Amino acid sequence: MKYFMEPQSVAIIGISRRSGPGSYNLMENMINYGYQGKIFPINPYANEILGIKAYDDVKKVDQKIDLAVISLPRELVVKTVTECVETGVKAIIVVTQGFADADDQGKAFQREIVALARDNGARILGPNTLGVVNNFNNFTTSFMPLMWDKAPVGLICQSGIFFVGSTIFSGPIGKGIDIGNACDIGFYEALEYLGDDPDIKIIVIHMEGLEQAREFISLAARYAKEKPIIAFKTGQSETGAKAAASHSGTMAGHYRIYKASLKQAGIHFLDEDGQMHDAVKTLLHQPPMKGNRIAVITVTGAGGIIASDAFNKYGLKMASLSEKTTSTIAEFSPEWMPLGNPLDIWPAVMRHDLRSVYATALKAVLDDDNVDGVLCISIAPGLPAFGSLDVSESLNKVVLREHKKPVVAWLYGPEVKEIGKRFEKENMIMVYQTIEKAAWSLSLLQERQKFLERANGQNR
Amino acid sequence: MKYFMEPQSVAIIGISRRSGPGSYNLMENMINYGYQGKIFPINPYANEILGIKAYDDVKKVDQKIDLAVISLPRELVVKTVTECVETGVKAIIVVTQGFADADDQGKAFQREIVALARDNGARILGPNTLGVVNNFNNFTTSFMPLMWDKAPVGLICQSGIFFVGSTIFSGPIGKGIDIGNACDIGFYEALEYLGDDPDIKIIVIHMEGLEQAREFISLAARYAKEKPIIAFKTGQSETGAKAAASHSGTMAGHYRIYKASLKQAGIHFLDEDGQMHDAVKTLLHQPPMKGNRIAVITVTGAGGIIASDAFNKYGLKMASLSEKTTSTIAEFSPEWMPLGNPLDIWPAVMRHDLRSVYATALKAVLDDDNVDGVLCISIAPGLPAFGSLDVSESLNKVVLREHKKPVVAWLYGPEVKEIGKRFEKENMIMVYQTIEKAAWSLSLLQERQKFLERANGQNR
Repeated sequence: MKYFMEPQSVAIIGISRRSGPGSYNLMENMINYGYQGKIFPINPYANEILGIKAYDDVKKVDQKIDLAVISLPRELVVKTVTECVETGVKAIIVVTQGFADADDQGKAFQREIVALARDNGARILGPNTLGVVNNFNNFTTSFMPLMWDKAPVGLICQSGIFFVGSTIFSGPIGKGIDIGNACDIGFYEALEYLGDDPDIKIIVIHMEGLEQAREFISLAARYAKEKPIIAFKTGQSETGAKAAASHSGTMAGHYRIYKASLKQAGIHFLDEDGQMHDAVKTLLHQPPMKGNRIAVITVTGAGGIIASDAFNKYGLKMASLSEKTTSTIAEFSPEWMPLGNPLDIWPAVMRHDLRSVYATALKAVLDDDNVDGVLCISIAPGLPAFGSLDVSESLNKVVLREHKKPVVAWLYGPEVKEIGKRFEKENMIMVYQTIEKAAWSLSLLQERQKFLERANGQNR
Repeated sequence: MKYFMEPQSVAIIGISRRSGPGSYNLMENMINYGYQGKIFPINPYANEILGIKAYDDVKKVDQKIDLAVISLPRELVVKTVTECVETGVKAIIVVTQGFADADDQGKAFQREIVALARDNGARILGPNTLGVVNNFNNFTTSFMPLMWDKAPVGLICQSGIFFVGSTIFSGPIGKGIDIGNACDIGFYEALEYLGDDPDIKIIVIHMEGLEQAREFISLAARYAKEKPIIAFKTGQSETGAKAAASHSGTMAGHYRIYKASLKQAGIHFLDEDGQMHDAVKTLLHQPPMKGNRIAVITVTGAGGIIASDAFNKYGLKMASLSEKTTSTIAEFSPEWMPLGNPLDIWPAVMRHDLRSVYATALKAVLDDDNVDGVLCISIAPGLPAFGSLDVSESLNKVVLREHKKPVVAWLYGPEVKEIGKRFEKENMIMVYQTIEKAAWSLSLLQERQKFLERANGQNR
């Protein structure tokens, strides 16, 4: 995988002379991305492309080629792969569509290039892929512009949609591998690379079909102890599986057989698109959760009720707060206020500063042995007028002292985005778009804890 | 309800002399909101508040008071309600907390004010409420600043959280009624007002407990034929119901008995917080959907697979496209491309302009008798460079010709927000944050169709 992710030299085969908007010129994109290695554009009709000397074919390049990226009509790919392996290229990305994702002819082409690679000790990524992105050395083979940051997040996917940025996964990622049709390099190889990579602390996977399931599962079980692994498996329904077969040409059906083992191996599975971003920030920044007893501190009774419903869905429960905790809050509240969990602190606000009441409450529940995790429901008020309702700084001060239990938050009001950033400033209190999502994220942290206990138990 | 929503004069009882940030001065908020009627601040310790003459008590006001808003410590509320009804006030909002939402003393206070109202022909909204908002005449009794637009959306809720704006319901609303503890005015009266209101085209309800269920259900069934009604019922779990009892003091438990009848009456129920905004824009702007056969047009195979899974969850299915439809697309696509549903048009893009291919495909599936609704998956590319991938205008042209089948969309890429606005410009193609949500929204439109068929069948 090193040649794919950190090549010193790249041949780009089938590169257009057109550049600029709408040309999907991957070489232009590679240069804009800041790639510092050598580039050999291959195009028999050009002497130079974007100011770089072009070659008629890959055999004319008289220097070592770490990686060849092929983006040609599918009829030319077998011939080109042959030339590559004959020249000694060991890593080849086939961007082109129309292989196992298409008709019988495409399947035959795919078999041919796999045989060529096997016979010559080369590896192929794709076909039908955007290739790779490595933000740690400014390298990408994507023909679509990317704009993600260096981040300890590794991505393995079967579609460029995950590279380009979307609500499915709105980044940031540090390194990404689109295995496409996975004709040769598959989940196993990609996971091995990211699993061993010290830059990467968490791995997210978009999976259509899974080959080498047994080997993959035992590899995942090993890495999952060190790095959380999150998977979004698509093609779970019958029609979805059928669609997957014609997309990446991989069999989605086998998955059902392996699902239990994959979960056993510590992989967190997502149920729908849009959960990946939350899963990453949760597992990256929050400690595993020892039990399922949650304290809810809220400035709105309605929010506490919604949380109760959501907990019920995700196997969590309202913690029974200790008397010490409730009596701490009682000092601030009107005497008629029923104090329990959810802990509605709004009635205290007419007489006290919300920031200090909220911080006191958070400290009390974090110190409470009956509490495994905390959900904070607060207001994101209009700024600057209502700044005294912004509790972000006060709560961060509490959590900075000690962060052994997860603290998640949900906000409402006009400044959700700005106050949300302030909550997340220390990467210790994570904010979610809905109460449901905040509850779900806590359940992930309990799942993580259970896996670690199981895995460590086995090691003893 | 007219006195509550469109008062000519308002007495504000328990108004602070403090104003500005952090004072929660509801009179200040009312003035800022643009209220044009008379205001009588009641405060025995002030001669004037914010430049308006203040009165010692409500009896000193020598003009007709349409509405009294009481925001006093709970111990003073019974006495004040007494003074109000003695002065002939017919509409009273009790903002104060600490009644049925609190202890036995609070419950007793609540019974007393209800009796006072009944005996004197007055109506009470609350206690424990932000009151009302009416954007059609710039009136609100909320002490929290609001910033919502005139919109044909009516809201009934049991928590101010829905007024202030949140991901639970990110507006816009035109008129809102927070029934709080619903000691007197409840869902029935609020629904009657909004149901008869020609400004309001859709009604959303946040419901903790429901009294007068039978009457409410028959009323809802009547209005639902004209205006979609959406309900977010909280306190569905056992712990949630318990929390609801201590929040608004209403019994959430009865709901289970009535749920089937409420659905039968045409109410769309939401499963979690965060769905309300999508439900409103879907039912407000899209036609009901005649069947469950959906065409997916996509620029990414992965997206089509995710859609398949989501359809499976919501009782939708992939339409079998007619031969005419597939042959229309075949003209643009490479010959190896397997054409079906999902209809992946990306392979056509290397040779054709995405905008014209996408518009042709959309027209074809809308004309296809095998199709009841359409999901468009497209890219929100970096602008202006990749503007040729922005299909919003082309698709709107197609839908503007005829909009008998719902068209929903999901976008990925860096400009989701901007391109999303362009998609929604004509209020005919609605964009959702995830594919799952887009699929769910289509299922709502089928639910609407089924209700209308049932309701119209009964009328024959």
